Amino acid sequence: MPFIHISMRAGKPDAFRQAILDGLYRAMREALAVPEDDQFMVIHEHDPSNFRTGNAFGVSRSDDVVYIDITVFASRTAEQKKALYQRIAALLGDEPGVRPEDIFIVVHDAPAENWSVGNGLRQFA
Amino acid sequence: MPFIHISMRAGKPDAFRQAILDGLYRAMREALAVPEDDQFMVIHEHDPSNFRTGNAFGVSRSDDVVYIDITVFASRTAEQKKALYQRIAALLGDEPGVRPEDIFIVVHDAPAENWSVGNGLRQFA
Amino acid sequence: MPFIHISMRAGKPDAFRQAILDGLYRAMREALAVPEDDQFMVIHEHDPSNFRTGNAFGVSRSDDVVYIDITVFASRTAEQKKALYQRIAALLGDEPGVRPEDIFIVVHDAPAENWSVGNGLRQFA
Repeated sequence: MPFIHISMRAGKPDAFRQAILDGLYRAMREALAVPEDDQFMVIHEHDPSNFRTGNAFGVSRSDDVVYIDITVFASRTAEQKKALYQRIAALLGDEPGVRPEDIFIVVHDAPAENWSVGNGLRQFA
Repeated sequence: MPFIHISMRAGKPDAFRQAILDGLYRAMREALAVPEDDQFMVIHEHDPSNFRTGNAFGVSRSDDVVYIDITVFASRTAEQKKALYQRIAALLGDEPGVRPEDIFIVVHDAPAENWSVGNGLRQFA
Repeated sequence: MPFIHISMRAGKPDAFRQAILDGLYRAMREALAVPEDDQFMVIHEHDPSNFRTGNAFGVSRSDDVVYIDITVFASRTAEQKKALYQRIAALLGDEPGVRPEDIFIVVHDAPAENWSVGNGLRQFA
């Protein structure tokens, strides 16, 4: 049950944004082996004045940067995270065609006790 | 001083959203014993194309899912978190009437040094 | 590569919001010594019914509260965080003129392996 906040510039067509959500879900299935229909994601669209990016770390980013802020189980390994980044970049590069330079990901680790995925229960701890 | 980002589908009446904020505040008062007027919360409303949920983990969710992304003091115990989930589900179930299946919570732990709740100070470390 | 979500009430002029982004970038340069053009920030604007604040912890906040939710490298020290809070309050106080009481900051720590700042790579681990 990763939970994802995506932030991007406003104005892309619906199909573009659906492809991002589809790609992220598929990347989580492949790299993290999440269960079927484990998709908990929201997109925030931002006007130009509410969105800023830069070229730090030698990456030429554009206004089409997609910020992906994802919270996962704290038990995920460094190797799983590495695989996740690779799959996200590959899949979003295919569809809807996000440049790899424009994919920016930050992961938050939350232990099992920090999740309640319905019914007020602490399902995993 | 928990800080909460709520994400939900756009279009619910103001009173519905106020009831969510009121319920979350009351749940924090009861389960975490936060001080009076410790309410730091924002709601993000999302169009259908910017909002996705699934039925993973055996929970039948609807489009009315409320994602609750809450950051708390790292000193909170697993028991306090469990009580918080129960109170949120009970209170939001009463008012505005969110189905328990539609309450999805993820908690982030932030140590005392990670908070500045005004005046540029590090109040708690 | 801190990543920042800013949440504030809707309706401030563009110049006001640019000054907030400029001030945060400068504060990160000075207090955290981030590299040039290391600016990864989004602003979320909220209607009154989607924004709540309180006066807990003896701080008289107004509707102009700026919530600053910032994720940094987990290697940042408590002293760096303290310096960051001071610089943010000082710089945003100068320009665009945010009251120090209205600056609320929460920091999330993410280890090196949790960042992919482009190209699907795990640059820092």
